[in-house]
Amino acid sequence: MSLNEQGIARRKRRVLFGSIAFIAGAALIIPTAAIAAVGDFGGARRENGDKTAEVREQIRGGHAKNVILLIGDGMGDSEITIARNYAYGAAGRLPGIDALPITGQYTTYSLYKDGDNKGKPDYVPDSAATGTAWSTGTKTYDNAVSVDIDNKPHDTILELAKANGFKTGNVSTAEIQDATPAVQVAHVAARSCYGPDTASCGADALLAGGRGSISEQLIGTRPDVTLGGGSTSFTQTAKAGQWSGKTLFEQATARGYQVVGTGAELAAVTTASQKSPVLGLFTPGNFPTRYTATTATVGGADLAPVTCTENPSRLSTDLSLKSLTNKAISLLKTPKASKKGFFLQVEGASIDKRDHSADACGQIGETIDFDEAVKAALDFAKKDKNTLVIVTADHAHSSQIVDSTPPGLSTAVTTKDGTVMKISYGTAGAGGSQQHTGTQLRIAAYGPRAANVLGLTDQTDTFFTMADALGVSKSLPKLSKDAKISISSKTVRPGAQVVAKVSKYNGDRQLTGTVTPDVAALPTKDSISGAASWSFTAPTEPGKYVVRIAGAQSGTKTAVSFTVK
Amino acid sequence: MSLNEQGIARRKRRVLFGSIAFIAGAALIIPTAAIAAVGDFGGARRENGDKTAEVREQIRGGHAKNVILLIGDGMGDSEITIARNYAYGAAGRLPGIDALPITGQYTTYSLYKDGDNKGKPDYVPDSAATGTAWSTGTKTYDNAVSVDIDNKPHDTILELAKANGFKTGNVSTAEIQDATPAVQVAHVAARSCYGPDTASCGADALLAGGRGSISEQLIGTRPDVTLGGGSTSFTQTAKAGQWSGKTLFEQATARGYQVVGTGAELAAVTTASQKSPVLGLFTPGNFPTRYTATTATVGGADLAPVTCTENPSRLSTDLSLKSLTNKAISLLKTPKASKKGFFLQVEGASIDKRDHSADACGQIGETIDFDEAVKAALDFAKKDKNTLVIVTADHAHSSQIVDSTPPGLSTAVTTKDGTVMKISYGTAGAGGSQQHTGTQLRIAAYGPRAANVLGLTDQTDTFFTMADALGVSKSLPKLSKDAKISISSKTVRPGAQVVAKVSKYNGDRQLTGTVTPDVAALPTKDSISGAASWSFTAPTEPGKYVVRIAGAQSGTKTAVSFTVK
Repeated sequence: MSLNEQGIARRKRRVLFGSIAFIAGAALIIPTAAIAAVGDFGGARRENGDKTAEVREQIRGGHAKNVILLIGDGMGDSEITIARNYAYGAAGRLPGIDALPITGQYTTYSLYKDGDNKGKPDYVPDSAATGTAWSTGTKTYDNAVSVDIDNKPHDTILELAKANGFKTGNVSTAEIQDATPAVQVAHVAARSCYGPDTASCGADALLAGGRGSISEQLIGTRPDVTLGGGSTSFTQTAKAGQWSGKTLFEQATARGYQVVGTGAELAAVTTASQKSPVLGLFTPGNFPTRYTATTATVGGADLAPVTCTENPSRLSTDLSLKSLTNKAISLLKTPKASKKGFFLQVEGASIDKRDHSADACGQIGETIDFDEAVKAALDFAKKDKNTLVIVTADHAHSSQIVDSTPPGLSTAVTTKDGTVMKISYGTAGAGGSQQHTGTQLRIAAYGPRAANVLGLTDQTDTFFTMADALGVSKSLPKLSKDAKISISSKTVRPGAQVVAKVSKYNGDRQLTGTVTPDVAALPTKDSISGAASWSFTAPTEPGKYVVRIAGAQSGTKTAVSFTVK
Repeated sequence: MSLNEQGIARRKRRVLFGSIAFIAGAALIIPTAAIAAVGDFGGARRENGDKTAEVREQIRGGHAKNVILLIGDGMGDSEITIARNYAYGAAGRLPGIDALPITGQYTTYSLYKDGDNKGKPDYVPDSAATGTAWSTGTKTYDNAVSVDIDNKPHDTILELAKANGFKTGNVSTAEIQDATPAVQVAHVAARSCYGPDTASCGADALLAGGRGSISEQLIGTRPDVTLGGGSTSFTQTAKAGQWSGKTLFEQATARGYQVVGTGAELAAVTTASQKSPVLGLFTPGNFPTRYTATTATVGGADLAPVTCTENPSRLSTDLSLKSLTNKAISLLKTPKASKKGFFLQVEGASIDKRDHSADACGQIGETIDFDEAVKAALDFAKKDKNTLVIVTADHAHSSQIVDSTPPGLSTAVTTKDGTVMKISYGTAGAGGSQQHTGTQLRIAAYGPRAANVLGLTDQTDTFFTMADALGVSKSLPKLSKDAKISISSKTVRPGAQVVAKVSKYNGDRQLTGTVTPDVAALPTKDSISGAASWSFTAPTEPGKYVVRIAGAQSGTKTAVSFTVK
């Protein structure tokens, strides 16, 4: 039996409390005495023998064809336990999160950006700094999206995976511009720089000569699959650059994206590629939560305990995080013979957001939702046998399971066990935002190189674990070093059409070009799997001309000449 | 390089913040640019390459000669992180706790004892129920010391190890009657049942026909080494039974214990055995803490940050937890040729107690103190190569690292990094007792069968991991099944001295006996490595007599007859 199947077998044996046995999917009458109760000697065990041999099988080196990173935003061990107790009982197992065989802890601190403390640890990080840690391998300051404390951009694991020929995906229940999804596709100094209308973009705005807002950079990073919320920013109009005056949706479509906004439209999508990447934004902002919100109050845990209810505004289940994860995997997976698979990041975003709001049912529902996505990823990985799955959080959060009603905010819920769980939110007062906390966090893995999450690691180690599992080169210039350019004809008539083509610009996402002398700059093009072409009208003046192309990310230059005569 | 040595090498590389490099034990001037700063790409990594092969070496099955279980009471992941940040910096490593290579999480819930909820999970446990979980493999109710929810006693891992011929030890910085050390040596319904004077003992009191207080049961359980606080209870006088009228110290001495009360006396002890076990109680109650107490206040984290100071009342370092751990190991370790080693439990007790008191410096000092004991155990295990070390906590606690001053109690401390860490205590008000919390906890291991702590386990699994690593039989009757009795002479003169001897009563700690007919009951004796002897005067009346001996724990009976003529 696999570790997971054993878990199921044990769960079946153990679901007895008192005198009634529930076994999922089976109507059984079992003599009570035949099943160990949780209070019996050994009755609460989760394992049933030495698992050394099974674990040894799980400790696999080599490389992974695919990496799936699943982030439960704000999902500390407390949030995991709260959700398990509520939905499966204290002796139960979360089918996804708890099924990962290899586990460790990691540190999440960020760094101060300014003043005397510059470069020193800031013990309570935000989601931007923490995401930057695993996406780039670099510690940074709160608010920073994949730039370091000096605002220097660092390549993300998604960008590197793409540059190395892997397919890439980015899925979230948040606005896709929110810090966690943003860290994979953009480099900005302020995480709030969502779209061209955002004032906080400052020097990052296209108009200011910057790399553009998160949404604009996302289009340029061009993951094969992007699914989440946050359509609002895409209805804004670019203020500068090549796409000035067009909405971001128009821009995305013009650049080849399959843009979808409903479950039905997503269902109709059957392929995703660099030529036709998928951009699915299903809500203006964040997704509605699974459960209706509760609000902790002073003395709340002394009130009648709550049973969480489905949120009527929840999106249809074809847009659940599990469904989006399955869809992303189906669009990203490459043929068996292909050595290169995909990198996919999946975020359950609102565990954090509901914890901030001291909303017990909200955070529980989002954790369960996320857990289903984890299970979907794990199910794929188990079949695939060549996928590294990592499940962790960006930072811990406020909610604590307590015995008696605390002086601050609290809520009581009735759990699957039929008993009451009291939850304390003690880091902010009523109406305030509950705080992230600085504790080390659980990180768990399955698949090749899973061993690298064991013991105590840092969040930045996760970047290297993933990058090295995929075996990617981390140098964009090296990945573009074989870049080639060709021209449709070395000699053309005045005013004829000329086509310049480049290939093997793998390290670049955009390419800029010029024709000299005296010809206007070529339009910036997306490097589609390293390739792009420009069709332009040859000058009327006879002479020798040079087409020069430069990789926007690698700086790699190529040139080809042609003669007009 | 071992995992731990790598950790040290990496730490050396990484201790740079700003422009000054500190390397422990070496005065070096290193050009700043030559060392990665924590804000550099990869500068905060804790690992420096794939550790699959090294981890695979750590995944060892088979059996362990020794097991050392180290419990940081109340030491959740938050308490670990707080101590690391304070003493070693956020990028640093706790030399003991962080060096364990194999890590997982476990659940700690207890059970309700009474009413409709009987046998259902109680999400926030106490130290008695949690200790019972790992000491007996059985979930129980808060307050219960190694009895189940029906108050049935269950054999502890220490009792079983002893019965299987292993040496045993029990070390704590608390009163030795406190729940965590008590769960290994006693079985009572109320954890407060410390000594013969304790009113709460109820039916457990000897006077009520029970098994006696924790202190009295401890004497009978007879670990080879017991070191801690709590001498007060031993100055009390037994109220019933064989030792009625004698203080527990007098009783212990009479039963063969080497009783010590100072560091010098302990230093003079060179052996510990079943014949002469060591009982070292160095304080009337709990040990004084390492650092002077601080008290969190409302708004406290806004006040000037604190640097913790040594507590002038701290015991001398020869009585630190590290020293006691080293001493216990030196007394317990068996010759290389011996297959059977020892079981040792070590508790850092006051992490919990100081967290209850919202005392940041107190809990930090106790965590550092505990960490030193972990390192001592690990150092032994690495040399020994046949020792399973498990490091975990009984339950989580209240303290949280926060970004801004919370509405409840808080304290700010200045850390090794030179920055400020704010700590929130939000589960009780000023003067109240901060609560345990119900989150799953870190469990870490090194040595044979360490793999069994991976993933999600329950606290009761730890009992089986340890028992099965030692390969102990869990049946006391089976361990006494070869019990034998002999008599000095089958035929004796009236009034002559007779000696009855038993052996191989390995499953028993005490033996009771009678001589029939018409002879008074023999005194209860300790089974010393399975053996005991009784010397008594033969009756004057000629005839046939029978000596009957029964194991108090196994119930195993032996008998031998003699004739007076």
